[in-house]
Amino acid sequence: AKDLHHSCQWGSGIRWGNDPTDTGMQRLALSEEDKSVRDWFIQTMKDLKCDITIDEMGNIFAVRPGRRKDVPATFIGSHLDTQPTGGRYDGILGVLSGVEALKRMDEMGLETEGGVGVVNWTNEEGARFPVSMIASGVWAECIPLSKAHNLKEVPTVASLPTAASAPETMKSALEKIHYLGDVPCSYKSTPMAAHFELHIEQGPHLISAGQRVGVVTAVQAYRWFRLKIIGRDTHTGTTAFEHRADALYAFAQMMVRAREVAAAKGCLASVGIIEVAPGSVNTVPGQVSFSLDIRGPETELVVEVEKELRSNFDKIAAAEGAGIGKPCRVEWTLDFDSPAVKFHKDCIDCVQQSAHAVVADAPVADTEALVRPIMSGAGHDSVFTSKRVPTSMIFVPCKDGLSHHPEEFSSADDCATGASVILQAVVRYDRK
Amino acid sequence: AKDLHHSCQWGSGIRWGNDPTDTGMQRLALSEEDKSVRDWFIQTMKDLKCDITIDEMGNIFAVRPGRRKDVPATFIGSHLDTQPTGGRYDGILGVLSGVEALKRMDEMGLETEGGVGVVNWTNEEGARFPVSMIASGVWAECIPLSKAHNLKEVPTVASLPTAASAPETMKSALEKIHYLGDVPCSYKSTPMAAHFELHIEQGPHLISAGQRVGVVTAVQAYRWFRLKIIGRDTHTGTTAFEHRADALYAFAQMMVRAREVAAAKGCLASVGIIEVAPGSVNTVPGQVSFSLDIRGPETELVVEVEKELRSNFDKIAAAEGAGIGKPCRVEWTLDFDSPAVKFHKDCIDCVQQSAHAVVADAPVADTEALVRPIMSGAGHDSVFTSKRVPTSMIFVPCKDGLSHHPEEFSSADDCATGASVILQAVVRYDRK
Ligand SMILES: NC(=O)NCCC(=O)O
Ligand SMILES: NC(=O)NCCC(=O)O
Repeated sequence: AKDLHHSCQWGSGIRWGNDPTDTGMQRLALSEEDKSVRDWFIQTMKDLKCDITIDEMGNIFAVRPGRRKDVPATFIGSHLDTQPTGGRYDGILGVLSGVEALKRMDEMGLETEGGVGVVNWTNEEGARFPVSMIASGVWAECIPLSKAHNLKEVPTVASLPTAASAPETMKSALEKIHYLGDVPCSYKSTPMAAHFELHIEQGPHLISAGQRVGVVTAVQAYRWFRLKIIGRDTHTGTTAFEHRADALYAFAQMMVRAREVAAAKGCLASVGIIEVAPGSVNTVPGQVSFSLDIRGPETELVVEVEKELRSNFDKIAAAEGAGIGKPCRVEWTLDFDSPAVKFHKDCIDCVQQSAHAVVADAPVADTEALVRPIMSGAGHDSVFTSKRVPTSMIFVPCKDGLSHHPEEFSSADDCATGASVILQAVVRYDRK
Repeated sequence: AKDLHHSCQWGSGIRWGNDPTDTGMQRLALSEEDKSVRDWFIQTMKDLKCDITIDEMGNIFAVRPGRRKDVPATFIGSHLDTQPTGGRYDGILGVLSGVEALKRMDEMGLETEGGVGVVNWTNEEGARFPVSMIASGVWAECIPLSKAHNLKEVPTVASLPTAASAPETMKSALEKIHYLGDVPCSYKSTPMAAHFELHIEQGPHLISAGQRVGVVTAVQAYRWFRLKIIGRDTHTGTTAFEHRADALYAFAQMMVRAREVAAAKGCLASVGIIEVAPGSVNTVPGQVSFSLDIRGPETELVVEVEKELRSNFDKIAAAEGAGIGKPCRVEWTLDFDSPAVKFHKDCIDCVQQSAHAVVADAPVADTEALVRPIMSGAGHDSVFTSKRVPTSMIFVPCKDGLSHHPEEFSSADDCATGASVILQAVVRYDRK
């Protein structure tokens, strides 16, 4: 926990309380702040006698060697980047629990069969470069390196260091902070025996139920789209409603409809980014661009919501400009597709056993009840590692289920419990 | 008409056809392009032997002296600034018809009792500096000079020359292009006998009815607001709808509601600008700011729409975050208030008589029917001059009623008809 808050000095964000650590984080991927925390991470791991590898996506792998050199290491991984108004736990806890695990192993003089590694994945959030988990996606060879290198930053994301100049690509941003490594970004070049990830739940289930550990068995599906609505610029004062092709009014109806359609199928649909043109008080906007994030427990459900929304949005767009105005037009671009994931039984078992062992001496009657299986609503780098190596995750509770918010909070106790579980899980896996 | 297109070389915008003049305009107030056209305007008026005055708001008054020096001049006025995606007629036609009128008077060797002036008002559009008609408003002493000088540009308006640096104020922008005059901006320092303005209708009535001239008798009321919705940033993937305080979803419902409420009262409500924070695909926006433009034929109707929307928006905001989320909050700021206007009978009479005289030899049976009284949906500088001196306006048809759009178009014939009417109206008024 000391290390966790120490690492938050780079990019600490909006203050919400009086304690020195009562701030959020704004450490966008590949920003100057991200560079500083990366430098710190590498130095810390070198001090722990780890071997360091940096790949073409700026992923940093630090390995504590085991007895055998011929088998890949078992990894603990997550990310050090944050949302523009993020907190101190999302991702950071995962990487720092790895650092902590290695320290404890050293203290205990623990030797492992294979090595044990800690990995910091680049741009997991997808906040600055709008594809989440992109660097673990390239590692898993699910996303082409060139697509990732050419991905442009979101120009309007808050507090970007480079808002003024032309948008950076991931490659130019990697070069700028000197984190464009030369090792190929691939599970073939940097293999793993398994990948474990500790994360705050980011939802209210554990905290509401008073439970301590979530054994994550699955991750829900999601798709990210960019949509553009093309209408017609016209005067707000002289153009009757029926003569408008008002792209923003069409958007408003679409967003309302999206929630209805998603809710009816137990899914989520959210808009996080919107831009209008030309952007003048007295001109009806002729163009609107926005992001759409659709999620659901099954891949098919997300596909169904998308399908319904495509036909609904077309109808809404056609209805605008029913008079002498022209109707609007909608264009969809799929930016990212993450099907539902089921984690690996062996990893889940190791986590489950470790969790029960760690909570065993809690001062409650039924310690079994402190642990539960759970599905992740958010995507994580483990989604991509699971495509190539046995993977699973551990959740710990967070206040109000709040995340992607400066007040995101997980108690020192909960963080420590999670760190103990992941350490045990890795050791158990190594001994299998 | 030649002068009109000549003057459009500075700031010509989006191309929509093959003809050299088939482009829109993007000449934001006090931009470099605006400086160029101002320089041209002054040189042209000096060549016509006019006396030039530039006041503290950068308004340019050019006067062709009359026989008597002891009475103020009768003015023809409008504006040379445009929307970011504007056309070649809105405002520009009004100023250029003044230039044309003075040229014709010289050709005819016409002497007038009082002088005849042409005025170019600054930032009529309210696109760059978001208060429309602000400089005629200061001249009429309806808007304080300091408020106008301190007004900041809209940072996101398309194609701003200075988007990168800190937003300019009107005063800094005036200084930058050397148009901060030292004559006080007031009807007391630069008096007028009357103000006439020729404008495209910006609506479909004249063109649909095949009519040639609108005798503008009134201008509808409007109010401009800036609204802010404050919700709570949270994760799009892990936060159930009922736990959100989604400021953008609240906005979407408000915009849909605004149209319903306005339509029910025969009014208009429009949103032209919107910004969200933090602006990340997977963060539910905790903050939305937007512009709201409410218009109606009577001041009271606009006030009623505002009142209904205030209570409706509060309800919508309160309903978000019905679960563990917090409800949203809405804040309103009134930026601009323009009550309904009735123009002056003497001016209306001059325009009416002139219009009938000009269309008298049109090749149709009922030339009377080519002229009609009409109300303006848009605000114009004449709104403010009417508070201090007899004022009225002339409308000519424009294609599809389209305005604030690059394809805005008025035929050379219609422009010439308008110019003839305004010249006659001024001469008639001078002789009264
Ligand atoms: N855990 C997390 O916030 N990941 C970002 C990807 C997502 O939006 O689910
Ligand atoms: N005529 C015109 O477009 N004026 C701008 C002010 C308004 O929005 O009505």
